Amino acid sequence: MPAGSNFPAVDGDRLWRSLMDLAAIGATPKGGVCRLALTDEDRRAREMFVEWARAAGCTVRVDPIGNIFARRAGRDPARPAVMTGSHIDTQPTGGKFDGNYGVLAGLEVLRRLNDLDIDTEAPVEVVVWTNEEGSRFVPVMMGSAVFAGAVALDDARAARDGDGISVGDALDRIGFAGPPCERPAIDSYFEAHIEQGPVLEDAGQTIGVVTGALGQRWFDCEVTGFEAHAGPTPMELRRDALQAAAVLMRRVVEIALVHAPHARGTVGQVQVHPNSRNVIPGGVIFSVDFRAPDDAMLDAMEQAFREAMSVVAIDHKVDVALRETSRFAALRFDAGCVAEVAAAARDLGVGAMEIVSGAGHDAIHIATCAPSAMIFVPCAGGISHNELEDADPVDLAAGANILLRCILNRARVVERG
Amino acid sequence: MPAGSNFPAVDGDRLWRSLMDLAAIGATPKGGVCRLALTDEDRRAREMFVEWARAAGCTVRVDPIGNIFARRAGRDPARPAVMTGSHIDTQPTGGKFDGNYGVLAGLEVLRRLNDLDIDTEAPVEVVVWTNEEGSRFVPVMMGSAVFAGAVALDDARAARDGDGISVGDALDRIGFAGPPCERPAIDSYFEAHIEQGPVLEDAGQTIGVVTGALGQRWFDCEVTGFEAHAGPTPMELRRDALQAAAVLMRRVVEIALVHAPHARGTVGQVQVHPNSRNVIPGGVIFSVDFRAPDDAMLDAMEQAFREAMSVVAIDHKVDVALRETSRFAALRFDAGCVAEVAAAARDLGVGAMEIVSGAGHDAIHIATCAPSAMIFVPCAGGISHNELEDADPVDLAAGANILLRCILNRARVVERG
Repeated sequence: MPAGSNFPAVDGDRLWRSLMDLAAIGATPKGGVCRLALTDEDRRAREMFVEWARAAGCTVRVDPIGNIFARRAGRDPARPAVMTGSHIDTQPTGGKFDGNYGVLAGLEVLRRLNDLDIDTEAPVEVVVWTNEEGSRFVPVMMGSAVFAGAVALDDARAARDGDGISVGDALDRIGFAGPPCERPAIDSYFEAHIEQGPVLEDAGQTIGVVTGALGQRWFDCEVTGFEAHAGPTPMELRRDALQAAAVLMRRVVEIALVHAPHARGTVGQVQVHPNSRNVIPGGVIFSVDFRAPDDAMLDAMEQAFREAMSVVAIDHKVDVALRETSRFAALRFDAGCVAEVAAAARDLGVGAMEIVSGAGHDAIHIATCAPSAMIFVPCAGGISHNELEDADPVDLAAGANILLRCILNRARVVERG
Repeated sequence: MPAGSNFPAVDGDRLWRSLMDLAAIGATPKGGVCRLALTDEDRRAREMFVEWARAAGCTVRVDPIGNIFARRAGRDPARPAVMTGSHIDTQPTGGKFDGNYGVLAGLEVLRRLNDLDIDTEAPVEVVVWTNEEGSRFVPVMMGSAVFAGAVALDDARAARDGDGISVGDALDRIGFAGPPCERPAIDSYFEAHIEQGPVLEDAGQTIGVVTGALGQRWFDCEVTGFEAHAGPTPMELRRDALQAAAVLMRRVVEIALVHAPHARGTVGQVQVHPNSRNVIPGGVIFSVDFRAPDDAMLDAMEQAFREAMSVVAIDHKVDVALRETSRFAALRFDAGCVAEVAAAARDLGVGAMEIVSGAGHDAIHIATCAPSAMIFVPCAGGISHNELEDADPVDLAAGANILLRCILNRARVVERG
């Protein structure tokens, strides 16, 4: 294992150029990327990745849900692979770095190993997971969920976008539905990613050693009042669904603040019926997104919200119903892999701090079938899922160096004769 | 003038049948009516009205904005007409009675005068005003506004629906753009209408003697925060536009309650950006509808809301802007016409109470160019702008009798030789 000073650092310029080349596919006028899963843009980006991987000497395999595995052989083909990767689909008004960074940092690691003729005992694989964003097809993190067995392949292929096109048809059309295969054994999985939040930047740290991920519970809350004409209906006779919903929307945030600093509560989506300016709303559906570092806290948050629902239903003479739409248990990443990331940062002299991921990532699924950890780097202003998303090339290179170090340690370097 | 006991009461069954026949045009499966202004359904309903009016011996004239005037001649053609009417366009999920009742109550008055061979000194006109609802084209109450000179004909014709079709093109297409003409002198205008609120039903009264209309101020309130990913963004670093908007939406109602019982405050329409469940909303636009019986109260309400905006902008680190979209001064109807309605109810022994209209009506515009008043009858549960809208045939006939009495008094009955 090379010492810190002799460490074969990645080529940060090459990494940056690859990021910019990939970002040209689906580039938006405002400097972002629109590359929804399984569109022609996604196909072109996949083809570019496959071409680069093959040029780096990898063998490329595609599984039935379209996950792409680029494998750099190890000395011992029997050993389970050390895996890294992320996704290259984006939000409709997404940025250049979310997902793409993890994939291209992995590719840069392979290229650097090639530059230096470094062989590893274990194979190293860079993976592109299908449809992480969930913008076009739900569920989110679809490719890693199918890989980990959390979602059945047939269910995933049957998911349809707003135009009625299924994942299966879209995969077939772009030519990325591979043949069935057994899930390979995995030594470990490391995913590099921009933080997508402001914590590292605020703390002035370069590396986030991700110890786990917040648990998530997503709901639709439906309030049913009574639609009536805004002018002639006296205030005291109203059953205004939006006023009741406004109280509950505030409660979502208040409940998160009770469990500061790690809990989160967000209402992102609101649908008002009939949504006419002179009609008292008869119905409102809004999303509730609770996140917390442990499931007991999530239980308490959900319970507090259900109690608020009961009070508001009586106070406002409305019906309130809650429907869970998604749930992820709080997760702690593998202690060994997390320690590997922390040690790499220490050995390379890069400022690092422990952090808990508030967002969902493919690593959350992979952690259920292999020892896993994540490496965060800052993004400007914490802005992500936004065309303004930006990151410092120096930070991106630092994260890739941590990834390289972790991979070298897990895959074992072979000294050339 | 006939005495109360000999009063030539309207034919309530005929009125009801006409209401049901008209309601068949644009009938919805839930028992309501969808007959948006200047659609084919509106055209068919207009043609049915014209046919009925001609069968009742009327001459029919259409003005350039599509208002239909059905005139029953008086003995003295030089006298200004006594006018009545309302509208036959509906909300997308509207009912059978809103507007339609005022038009068909007027038609029933003419039919009853014919039955009994009663001549009047002054002509009597029944008017169908164009696009009262404002669902397809804004502004609302368009036909009466153009008639009264509150909106220029060219501006009204240039208004476009969501598909980009102008009022002018739609009028030409359905054949209801009449030739230019001077606005005729009007003796008085009486409009019968369902209350569209629950006050009469609650009070157990049959007739609302409408003394005036609440003043209205409508606004769009725009809150601008900062869009960010819901998971990784700590609560204390958020600039959540929806949370700020929720506080302000509550304030709209709280401000109305301060000015109870006649003030109203409603948020009917909300638009959230980007409206994605795991993105902290960066922008929200919501409607504000304030109504009050006098303009000083409206000033105080608007002022209180602007103060709340300033506080919320600071507390939530957002920008808040308010744009007025519509304004009607509070209105008192003509004392003589209001007294006529009250006297008719008293003479006919029908339970009546004074009431202030919370909704906009064509009468509000006509009141600016002729002595005007309105006659309200109850609707079931106060429900209107709803497919469930319903009314009691007995109440509808009672309201038409009041209308008949007012018209006879103003137009002067001629005893036949």
